[in-house]
Amino acid sequence: MKKIAVIIAGCGHLDGAEIRESILTLLELDRNKCQTHIFAPDQNQADVVNHCTGEAMQETRNVLVEAARIARGDIASLEKLNADNFDALILPGGFGAAKNLSTIATDGANALVNPQLDKLIRDFHTQKKPIGAICISPAIVARTLADKDPVLTLGGHNQLLDKMMVRQAECTATDTIVDTKNKLVSTPAYMGNAHLHEIQMGIAKLVSQILEMCK
Amino acid sequence: MKKIAVIIAGCGHLDGAEIRESILTLLELDRNKCQTHIFAPDQNQADVVNHCTGEAMQETRNVLVEAARIARGDIASLEKLNADNFDALILPGGFGAAKNLSTIATDGANALVNPQLDKLIRDFHTQKKPIGAICISPAIVARTLADKDPVLTLGGHNQLLDKMMVRQAECTATDTIVDTKNKLVSTPAYMGNAHLHEIQMGIAKLVSQILEMCK
Repeated sequence: MKKIAVIIAGCGHLDGAEIRESILTLLELDRNKCQTHIFAPDQNQADVVNHCTGEAMQETRNVLVEAARIARGDIASLEKLNADNFDALILPGGFGAAKNLSTIATDGANALVNPQLDKLIRDFHTQKKPIGAICISPAIVARTLADKDPVLTLGGHNQLLDKMMVRQAECTATDTIVDTKNKLVSTPAYMGNAHLHEIQMGIAKLVSQILEMCK
Repeated sequence: MKKIAVIIAGCGHLDGAEIRESILTLLELDRNKCQTHIFAPDQNQADVVNHCTGEAMQETRNVLVEAARIARGDIASLEKLNADNFDALILPGGFGAAKNLSTIATDGANALVNPQLDKLIRDFHTQKKPIGAICISPAIVARTLADKDPVLTLGGHNQLLDKMMVRQAECTATDTIVDTKNKLVSTPAYMGNAHLHEIQMGIAKLVSQILEMCK
């Protein structure tokens, strides 16, 4: 049974994890009889956004506590994740990836990646374990592994990856981009305005390819 | 194109909508090319629960605003839902159904159902439009339509339906119970401890049967 780590950054696409991308990832891992462990950083969210209006709310919420809604409580703090214990890593998207796991939302190509996550991505890569990245999360992988000459996608051609000097390939929501050398798989999901069943197809393909790449 | 109304009661199974049941319902409706409209009551949640610990949090959250996380902002207040404009109604589960859409969590078989929802369920039923109910939501349908001699399921045999004097059938997460006369379909989903892909099968079957029942 393959052990897969999934990192989510809250609960809601405007200030946390994209819920649908997260659930569809968990669904495909479950269908493929994986042992899935979910992690989130135990820190305050960068912000809290009203998902009806898109406006900021004067509240403080914790990334791990909110992510536990998606995980139904079966979740651990990111600091407990050790690449040695897992076969692959998957990062669903949502603005939380750009706000809570990195500073991409504010700093773009100069973003900092959460140091624990930065180390984890390098660890999985060094151990030749595959990494799947969905939606905006490929930008995190790009920032961390830029020196490894990765190929990733954010859907359409995206200046963010240009500015990071990272190669990119255009991709629709039903498809994935595979970097065989670095064992990276990415799919754009909600980077565009695809239908939910199309996004499901892309995520199912990503999970299948990640599992094939596991040693 | 069939128009389907989905009512969710927040975002998180302990104080709102069961997220996975909600997303899987939306996925199946999208796969079947339905026009889906999501609704939630514009009212404060009965409570806010920390999904890591299961303990109450000293916060106030609005059901509609939190449900918008699942809906990605594409949601309307329950008071705007009119059965005349839709072909079917689907109610995902989660404790929100028992706390925010009804008082089942505190009052059991004597629960009050949100008056708008109570009227909507009666309207869909009177217009011979199918109603799908997932997880604990069949108990809401049971409470509203008890005088119509419905048959519903909450998974295993459940005293709540006995006390409501409503007929029940046992059902696994991969399956559904169909009440042809009343055009009701129910599936237990997270009433038990089934795997996510099993719950997906039950919800896919429910959506398929609901769409077949649409005039």
